[in-house]
Amino acid sequence: MTVDLRSDTVTRPTPGMREAMANAEVGDDVYGEDPEINALEAEVAALFGHEAALFVPTGTMGNQIGVALHAQPGDEVLCDVGAHLLAYERGGSAAFFGITSRTIVSPDGICVPDAYAAHVREGDWHTVGTAVLQVENTHNRGGGRVQPLEALRGLRKVADDSGIAVHCDGARIWNAHIASGVPLSEYGPLFDTVSVCLSKGLGAPVGSVLVLPARLKARARILRGRMGGGMRQAGVLAAAGRYAIKNHLAGLADDHARARRLAEALEPYGVVDLAQVETNLVMINLSQSGPDSAAFAKAAADAGVLVSAMDPRRVRLVTHLDVSDDDIEVAAKVLTGLVAG
Amino acid sequence: MTVDLRSDTVTRPTPGMREAMANAEVGDDVYGEDPEINALEAEVAALFGHEAALFVPTGTMGNQIGVALHAQPGDEVLCDVGAHLLAYERGGSAAFFGITSRTIVSPDGICVPDAYAAHVREGDWHTVGTAVLQVENTHNRGGGRVQPLEALRGLRKVADDSGIAVHCDGARIWNAHIASGVPLSEYGPLFDTVSVCLSKGLGAPVGSVLVLPARLKARARILRGRMGGGMRQAGVLAAAGRYAIKNHLAGLADDHARARRLAEALEPYGVVDLAQVETNLVMINLSQSGPDSAAFAKAAADAGVLVSAMDPRRVRLVTHLDVSDDDIEVAAKVLTGLVAG
Amino acid sequence: MTVDLRSDTVTRPTPGMREAMANAEVGDDVYGEDPEINALEAEVAALFGHEAALFVPTGTMGNQIGVALHAQPGDEVLCDVGAHLLAYERGGSAAFFGITSRTIVSPDGICVPDAYAAHVREGDWHTVGTAVLQVENTHNRGGGRVQPLEALRGLRKVADDSGIAVHCDGARIWNAHIASGVPLSEYGPLFDTVSVCLSKGLGAPVGSVLVLPARLKARARILRGRMGGGMRQAGVLAAAGRYAIKNHLAGLADDHARARRLAEALEPYGVVDLAQVETNLVMINLSQSGPDSAAFAKAAADAGVLVSAMDPRRVRLVTHLDVSDDDIEVAAKVLTGLVAG
Amino acid sequence: MTVDLRSDTVTRPTPGMREAMANAEVGDDVYGEDPEINALEAEVAALFGHEAALFVPTGTMGNQIGVALHAQPGDEVLCDVGAHLLAYERGGSAAFFGITSRTIVSPDGICVPDAYAAHVREGDWHTVGTAVLQVENTHNRGGGRVQPLEALRGLRKVADDSGIAVHCDGARIWNAHIASGVPLSEYGPLFDTVSVCLSKGLGAPVGSVLVLPARLKARARILRGRMGGGMRQAGVLAAAGRYAIKNHLAGLADDHARARRLAEALEPYGVVDLAQVETNLVMINLSQSGPDSAAFAKAAADAGVLVSAMDPRRVRLVTHLDVSDDDIEVAAKVLTGLVAG
Repeated sequence: MTVDLRSDTVTRPTPGMREAMANAEVGDDVYGEDPEINALEAEVAALFGHEAALFVPTGTMGNQIGVALHAQPGDEVLCDVGAHLLAYERGGSAAFFGITSRTIVSPDGICVPDAYAAHVREGDWHTVGTAVLQVENTHNRGGGRVQPLEALRGLRKVADDSGIAVHCDGARIWNAHIASGVPLSEYGPLFDTVSVCLSKGLGAPVGSVLVLPARLKARARILRGRMGGGMRQAGVLAAAGRYAIKNHLAGLADDHARARRLAEALEPYGVVDLAQVETNLVMINLSQSGPDSAAFAKAAADAGVLVSAMDPRRVRLVTHLDVSDDDIEVAAKVLTGLVAG
Repeated sequence: MTVDLRSDTVTRPTPGMREAMANAEVGDDVYGEDPEINALEAEVAALFGHEAALFVPTGTMGNQIGVALHAQPGDEVLCDVGAHLLAYERGGSAAFFGITSRTIVSPDGICVPDAYAAHVREGDWHTVGTAVLQVENTHNRGGGRVQPLEALRGLRKVADDSGIAVHCDGARIWNAHIASGVPLSEYGPLFDTVSVCLSKGLGAPVGSVLVLPARLKARARILRGRMGGGMRQAGVLAAAGRYAIKNHLAGLADDHARARRLAEALEPYGVVDLAQVETNLVMINLSQSGPDSAAFAKAAADAGVLVSAMDPRRVRLVTHLDVSDDDIEVAAKVLTGLVAG
Repeated sequence: MTVDLRSDTVTRPTPGMREAMANAEVGDDVYGEDPEINALEAEVAALFGHEAALFVPTGTMGNQIGVALHAQPGDEVLCDVGAHLLAYERGGSAAFFGITSRTIVSPDGICVPDAYAAHVREGDWHTVGTAVLQVENTHNRGGGRVQPLEALRGLRKVADDSGIAVHCDGARIWNAHIASGVPLSEYGPLFDTVSVCLSKGLGAPVGSVLVLPARLKARARILRGRMGGGMRQAGVLAAAGRYAIKNHLAGLADDHARARRLAEALEPYGVVDLAQVETNLVMINLSQSGPDSAAFAKAAADAGVLVSAMDPRRVRLVTHLDVSDDDIEVAAKVLTGLVAG
Repeated sequence: MTVDLRSDTVTRPTPGMREAMANAEVGDDVYGEDPEINALEAEVAALFGHEAALFVPTGTMGNQIGVALHAQPGDEVLCDVGAHLLAYERGGSAAFFGITSRTIVSPDGICVPDAYAAHVREGDWHTVGTAVLQVENTHNRGGGRVQPLEALRGLRKVADDSGIAVHCDGARIWNAHIASGVPLSEYGPLFDTVSVCLSKGLGAPVGSVLVLPARLKARARILRGRMGGGMRQAGVLAAAGRYAIKNHLAGLADDHARARRLAEALEPYGVVDLAQVETNLVMINLSQSGPDSAAFAKAAADAGVLVSAMDPRRVRLVTHLDVSDDDIEVAAKVLTGLVAG
């Protein structure tokens, strides 16, 4: 039996979720007639205290549309140097929307509003102008750290002072909410747009939702259509998403506890910084002298534990709906064996 | 009760299809581990006599990736002036991939290889080069006409003579196959890439498949990722698609027969050219003196029949899985009433 | 001695023009401080009855900025299938600005407003919208034909009826003006933007001017900067352009007369349609049986006459400032010898 | 009388340079037939120990083509957060070529190879790949600092280790050469491409040269054509550039000496770091309490000295060919008066 800690994207729909999908009342969402989609969009918008939302097939599409709603070709997005937006979306913001970027450093993934403020610039005939500040919560490459509410408020103020927008990559904002206790409705208004994922910790098979102001929805639909994201009876997916929000959100606390247990098991070997483990991600920092992350991942896989090589010396573990307490015991044994060398 | 003839995209999944979805064995397709997706891709590739295939959320994404696999920014695609590619995909080929286009006229949607040949040009330091010929089968704005096999072979020859590629928008190539009896495996090799739709006549809720050579699949996956089309447990959708191909393909003949009946009912009023009705589309040509297509569509909707206004004087009717013989009788009565004026 | 009929771009600056350049008072045009540039822009704007103008290094840049001022990524430009915009600018409108295109046929290069009207479409969430109509005057691939004033007025009306823009590629609009007697100030207001060339028939070494409404100038400067067209002491070029307009405009009539003489010499051989020769371009239509245009061009070059192969069976001759009456005699002898075979 | 220290772009051609332009033998450079252009390209390539070079109207075009030669849409360029490429070229690399970027910090503009190395990543189906490292020498926003040869060699090694390219924005590499004594032929081979400017310190009115490997020249010409940079009798500009290299290069030492004098005059007021003044740029760091840079620039202008506001608290002074020793005395008096407050 394999324990799959590569990502929380690997979860499979539960029987209850499958039943919800099988019973979903659907319509053609390109015509705006899918009741499940319409309900999902309304519910997620409400959760985040926003006016509107748009279902999209992936978080990559949600982020790209979100950023593009605020920037013209040649405008600039400022974000962390480790942002998913620039690392894992195959450069879509530049390639498709012509948006240029500069990056700043968020120590341990935690956003520093002053660092953004120091780089915002107004455009003119000669100078590129900053149009969007982007932030990730929780921060993937930052090890699942939760953005402190004060930092997000500070970021909002930087944006407001300059009359520009904030987009949040909230793929795992559900985890931030559960870990911090900050209501989703308190996060939402701090961002002009936020993309939230249904198919990570929440366990739905497919889909993200882009939360946005009502006035931007028509344009977001156009961009979604252009990107090839205008699906038809997408309600079969929305039903899974609605089920996930209703039934799996609170359970993220268990994922966090399991990640914590795994981290505590590894901590004595000096490869994990417990202070960084706030949600469902654990980063193992390999020693410079031992095997690199690819070799480590292979050895772990051979022993039945799948992990992700993030950087040459960093390995990521992710807990999720399909990882049980027993799985954690197995994984802890295998991984501590490997780091003990 | 409403008869919905707007599009074959409006079909809802049948109980059998829902069951297939509910029972689908799934995995993370971004990691290439979804068994249903892998099976669907293999089956569709085989049907079309090709090496490989890639599941994508929409035909828009399938077409854009298909064309982009053969062209660099600044290269040219030649296609019919009424092509879906340029009409309904919000300009994605140019906006996202920088592909420029010239258009030719395909009378009644039927492709004329010589017209393409006359416009192909080789690029140099100064001149834009043609990289892709694009064709649509059946042709949507051409009224669902089936591309004659000889025309497609001619097009292939034009491409081969110039060393360039052919992409087929085969959203409704299933209908072409059923109407003409030409095997899908005979169509496939005539194109370098072909995008086929699961959510039109076949009745699946979501998804298209891009059929392509194996050597292009890795790049197609990158482009799909960049477009935001890399979904996770997409097997729930693939299961519906596989069910549709197995169970709904032959039934397209019924859609065609129903479209024919509708056309025959309208023909006496001089608004339909029966010779053009080969598949599941019927085009009503409104008189210049009467109401325009928007007014006509509204009047029809008020009487319980939904139709599409294609052009100011053209109305499109589409039969599909959710339109019964009785529906046709209702629609015929309403629509003949309207055209009789 | 060689007679160079390849293009009117090959002219070399005259002694008077060189003197004007040497004496030009210049400044930094990126700061808007070059007096010659400012004077040129004001003069050309006034000639065309427009408010403003912008100097650009090439007609390619003038056309691309002109079209891009009226269209967003994913919007559509409608133009003739033989337009310079799509043929010779390496696809920049799509590659850089994401503008999509459909093409119509302008018989002999003469624009047919109704053909444009039949293709204009309004965009919505699904459909690409037409944003710009583009027309070329005189028409290069159309053999230097002058657009009839009535046709241009018709085109203006099509645009006005739809609330969209017209851009004119006026690289050789000077020739149209001289040949037709239509004042430049009558042409200008028919277009939202028009790009005119200083380095073709007028004989300046470098540069075009984009004529435009004052409200679009700031944005045009931004796009020029992004394209790398914001030059510094560009007044040395503007001085040549101003000299050319003052001293060489009327002389285009001589180029036209010389083209006519050349055409008349060739006409008896059935390779030239005299009715098409209105300005400084002559198109030789080679017989299908003889050598193709590349072979013809090579044979002509070997005999001291340089010509352009436009299409496999079409050769273009262009008269200009550096082609004398004697050159025409030489060229006529060589070319008639070749077509006589 | 005004002393213009805004930029070294404001220089006006000298009488000798104007004579060179007036006597330039020219041809049509789009056809590759301009002798002055061909000579300039050959000479600059040789100076930098490279095979080939391409004349372009501006440094913006040189940089954009240089970077685009090494990267596909969606690939990444790594550069300093203050790079001209991202600050002043209106986002062209992203807007036109779809190239994405992350930025690193080069303290005082000095490139740190390890910082680049830490960010280079290989692309795969999911991850954006780094394709180009970009460096600026001298560094504009870094105050004209000269990149140490060791740093540039280190950067080359980082690139070689990863099999990627280095592009140098060498707009002021002439100043680096004069200040450091490092031969241009030693700089050149460290870069795959380098864009050098003729219209800054060298004093030519217009133009830059992109130095590149011969194998990339054909593609560079295509990109130049697409950007609208394919000019005709550009030899009139190349003649000025050749004159400038021959006659003004050594004189940059005088500009550096004058910048030094100005810096020394200001240093006692604590607003200039003399250690940073290596070439022809001087950065004044205004106190937080006094007027900001815009107000300072206005006050200076009112007193006859033009300067540039770089940042809210930074003012840039640039010496050049048109700034004499007397001008420096005047400027020193005015500016020290202002900083003395």
